Amino acid sequence: MPTRIKAPGRTADPVLVIGSIAYDNIITPHATGENILGGSAAYASLAASYFAPPQLVGVVGHDFKKRDRQKLLRRGIDLSGLTTDESGKTFTWKGRYHENYNRRDTENLQLNVFEKFHPHLNAQHQVVPYVLLGNIRPSLQLAVLAQLSAPRFIVTDTIDIWIETQSEALKEVIRKTDLLIINDTEAGKLTGETNVPIAGKRLLELGCRAAIIKKGEHGALLFHPEGLFALPAYPVTELRDPTGAGDSFAGALLGYLAATGKTDFPTLRQAMIYGTVVASLTVEAFSTDRLTDTGCREIRRRRKELLRMIKV
Amino acid sequence: MPTRIKAPGRTADPVLVIGSIAYDNIITPHATGENILGGSAAYASLAASYFAPPQLVGVVGHDFKKRDRQKLLRRGIDLSGLTTDESGKTFTWKGRYHENYNRRDTENLQLNVFEKFHPHLNAQHQVVPYVLLGNIRPSLQLAVLAQLSAPRFIVTDTIDIWIETQSEALKEVIRKTDLLIINDTEAGKLTGETNVPIAGKRLLELGCRAAIIKKGEHGALLFHPEGLFALPAYPVTELRDPTGAGDSFAGALLGYLAATGKTDFPTLRQAMIYGTVVASLTVEAFSTDRLTDTGCREIRRRRKELLRMIKV
Repeated sequence: MPTRIKAPGRTADPVLVIGSIAYDNIITPHATGENILGGSAAYASLAASYFAPPQLVGVVGHDFKKRDRQKLLRRGIDLSGLTTDESGKTFTWKGRYHENYNRRDTENLQLNVFEKFHPHLNAQHQVVPYVLLGNIRPSLQLAVLAQLSAPRFIVTDTIDIWIETQSEALKEVIRKTDLLIINDTEAGKLTGETNVPIAGKRLLELGCRAAIIKKGEHGALLFHPEGLFALPAYPVTELRDPTGAGDSFAGALLGYLAATGKTDFPTLRQAMIYGTVVASLTVEAFSTDRLTDTGCREIRRRRKELLRMIKV
Repeated sequence: MPTRIKAPGRTADPVLVIGSIAYDNIITPHATGENILGGSAAYASLAASYFAPPQLVGVVGHDFKKRDRQKLLRRGIDLSGLTTDESGKTFTWKGRYHENYNRRDTENLQLNVFEKFHPHLNAQHQVVPYVLLGNIRPSLQLAVLAQLSAPRFIVTDTIDIWIETQSEALKEVIRKTDLLIINDTEAGKLTGETNVPIAGKRLLELGCRAAIIKKGEHGALLFHPEGLFALPAYPVTELRDPTGAGDSFAGALLGYLAATGKTDFPTLRQAMIYGTVVASLTVEAFSTDRLTDTGCREIRRRRKELLRMIKV
């Protein structure tokens, strides 16, 4: 049994995570990581596993390593929804981070088996109440939503390309979303508004029940009908690879909701603290290395430190 | 008597503000402001005036308008240290803000009478306990420090040019500083460290007792021997002109310390809240317009709003 941070007197509900599993090639100003486990669903489900039992829905190719499957299984992640498509290779992404890590370029992207991916939920997946729609094509996100029989809280992520090319389908997803989590650039593209506080209000007007705009090292803002919550980032002093920070944030956040069984404004604020802390671990190493070897103790310690930092 | 936010059962100590008084020409993507009152000492003393009686030390030329002098006097600012140099014109600065306001260029700068400015403190100024050294030449900041007979808390501001050209004198000022307030770019140049949490630690190693790194719309971080404090910015939705935001932040912060007579870590955190709120007013209008017509009620209202926003 993997260690978990538990809500008092309650067994965590499961979390369904849909997204990519990838082999990444990462170049940073200081080092490179070759053919390392990545993808939104890998980061998010590992992050969620510190709070609730994740069920992963995704696809890998014939080259997916047993070692990487073991990494996920050891954290208690249910892989009954992870298809192996023997006809091709796992999705790969090559990205380069520039000085200060605040800009990255995609140097290569091979969809491989991900190109034909169509999420099919089995009976067990269909009834999961907490769902994270990773940044896949909006039409696939809609296909997942249509298969859910008892969704309680839907978290949606997306990226620039879908905002630019699939805006209508994406807006339909957003209307069915409880919490949209995107970064400031994406929020600007989606709303046409570069002022973050205004962009946040526009996101709620698109029909999601709440929205978080992430600002990387500058923290994140939660826009909610009951108010605004602004959270600074955990101060990372050993940045190695920012890949997966956003997915880890979303996964840990949703995991915490599933652990507590609550989704109100105060619980969302607490969940953001955990999301921020778990994201801070992810960026301190390549791939999911820090996510898989960190214990609950370090998560609790950083949470306390962050709470002390933001207390007036 | 100008309205003030008072500490219970205490009369505020005075605040000494040394810096520039300027006529600015500001071009933003949406409007322009011509020949408008600006300069670090104008913004900082107006901001401080909401908490404590400021004494301004600076110089203006023969063109300084009676109307602008009245603006300062109406907020209870002592101008016995404001010299009028009839031999020339007031310092002028022309700056252009680009899209999103996060970059600005200096298009013209005429030091005029400011070139020969040498701060001379009269007997009244010399005993003021709370002192703001605005971003003038470090050698002049040292000259001010040498004239003080009972300094209790020294706040220092500086800009890129002094970091690049007067690094040794600046470091001497910093060693005599209780609180250094600079932005993230300046902190990077001063410490050679672009990671803000690390740069903050390096600033303390330079010998100031505490340091604040400002990040504009992303808030500010206080580095203190007792810990770190991270504060998001007040969410400004009507940005008109960012000029003077940093000076207003520093002025209000120091004014609050002078009002309470305390300079410990918890009081500094409270003072940052007020600094952030007063800076949010400054940027909503050109020049000092919003600073001179806002009442204490609006400052108190925004403070409450900001406190609600950051509460976990």
